Amino acid sequence: MENFNKKIKKVCKIKNNRLCLGLDIDNSKLKNNSLDYMQSFIFDIIDATIDLCPIYKINFAFYEKHGSRGYNLLEKISEKFNQNTVTIADAKRGDIGNSSKYYAESIFEHFNFDSITVSPYMGYDSILPFTLRKDKGVFILCLTSNSGSADIQNLISDKTYIYEHVVNIALKLNLLNNIGLVVGATKVDNLSLLKSKTDELPWLMPGVGFQGGDLKKSLEIGEYNDKGTSIINVSRGILCFESKNGNYGSITSIRNATEKFTSQIREIV
Amino acid sequence: MENFNKKIKKVCKIKNNRLCLGLDIDNSKLKNNSLDYMQSFIFDIIDATIDLCPIYKINFAFYEKHGSRGYNLLEKISEKFNQNTVTIADAKRGDIGNSSKYYAESIFEHFNFDSITVSPYMGYDSILPFTLRKDKGVFILCLTSNSGSADIQNLISDKTYIYEHVVNIALKLNLLNNIGLVVGATKVDNLSLLKSKTDELPWLMPGVGFQGGDLKKSLEIGEYNDKGTSIINVSRGILCFESKNGNYGSITSIRNATEKFTSQIREIV
Repeated sequence: MENFNKKIKKVCKIKNNRLCLGLDIDNSKLKNNSLDYMQSFIFDIIDATIDLCPIYKINFAFYEKHGSRGYNLLEKISEKFNQNTVTIADAKRGDIGNSSKYYAESIFEHFNFDSITVSPYMGYDSILPFTLRKDKGVFILCLTSNSGSADIQNLISDKTYIYEHVVNIALKLNLLNNIGLVVGATKVDNLSLLKSKTDELPWLMPGVGFQGGDLKKSLEIGEYNDKGTSIINVSRGILCFESKNGNYGSITSIRNATEKFTSQIREIV
Repeated sequence: MENFNKKIKKVCKIKNNRLCLGLDIDNSKLKNNSLDYMQSFIFDIIDATIDLCPIYKINFAFYEKHGSRGYNLLEKISEKFNQNTVTIADAKRGDIGNSSKYYAESIFEHFNFDSITVSPYMGYDSILPFTLRKDKGVFILCLTSNSGSADIQNLISDKTYIYEHVVNIALKLNLLNNIGLVVGATKVDNLSLLKSKTDELPWLMPGVGFQGGDLKKSLEIGEYNDKGTSIINVSRGILCFESKNGNYGSITSIRNATEKFTSQIREIV
């Protein structure tokens, strides 16, 4: 069993890619809005992209809105991946230690995801229970891609941004080389300095595509000093490629978009 | 349809109580660990306490560890309550606006809970989608009861604790009188000053009982200046009353503990 951060590097190397495809499927935008159709659409997307794409991120919000049936779909999706793929449960969990222990059990044992996103507001002991398996990873929200990131994350305490305090918590938790950070690709101005402080931690970078993040700059900064790998998450930028009004494209257009982002990434790194 | 914060006051007045019972059931501690048994145990607890108890908090971690079947149990539990009760989905959600919108749909429409707990790390726009129905409430994590609360929440920026910055976000979001705060009862030293700043916002106060929070002080401070209602959450302190090794008590002992806390609360407020 290898450490999670080594596995991330390995699958990115095998597929010569840094792309993370966000499987954010809103069934109300599908031509048939049944969960069965949603499942077959997602399975087709995975089949059409898994030779190129090393990492998949599943945002739980899109599934939880269907209640227990949505979680049943998550159980089926997580079985679909193979060992040359890393899955991220984008669930943004975080609670007192006793509860976080159960969330870790849920995501890593029951749903069998390889990693999770967590919120750091409740501090070190709320994240610790997620970090105890070296083969399972934890991406801690650090500097997010939304406008509200300024409200707490960009405040300065002791001459240090709050998101840098989060980096310090993350580094303390990285005893098993399985901690990463969520760093929004829309915040390019701050990233070079931040990268110099985050040591070997991999970055999960959402925001490229619809949110306006810059792929080239994100990758260049992300590779600063050959430190931790940058993973570029694209969701709508691939799923809605060549389609109108925010609708999903065909499986062919999703494949084309995956190839396009893959080529762009391979040119840069 | 009344505003959520008015409903909280109303149900507390009807039952002459401020008690919130946390239904944190770990099935591995039950004599029969099937989910059917867990459901009947929870239903029995509700039946045995609902005449006294105005508010119930359900921590999703204890259910999510069972995957889709745990969420199915949540669907059944939320149907069990009547209109003289307020339910809190203790799910600690929070994401970019588009995803938070789906979480709000999940918790308020699909699962039909009256309110939710959310994490403020991602800022104003990550909470906004939860606040748009006046009859549904949002408890924002402010000052939590765990030791890690010091790591981010107690940092000082611009002469103001981070948890006070969260209060300012909460006050800005309270346009429909449906926002509350999570304030740990274990942090009594800071509470009087904080109460003076949180205006009419109700407080959900976990930490009384096993975590060592002081019921009397919490209620006294919570009632400061007749501002927003303080709700006292007790989970293990009631569920494990008179039992050993953290096991759950009988339904009779749970009833007795509910009566005991209710009497204590009625003496103070």
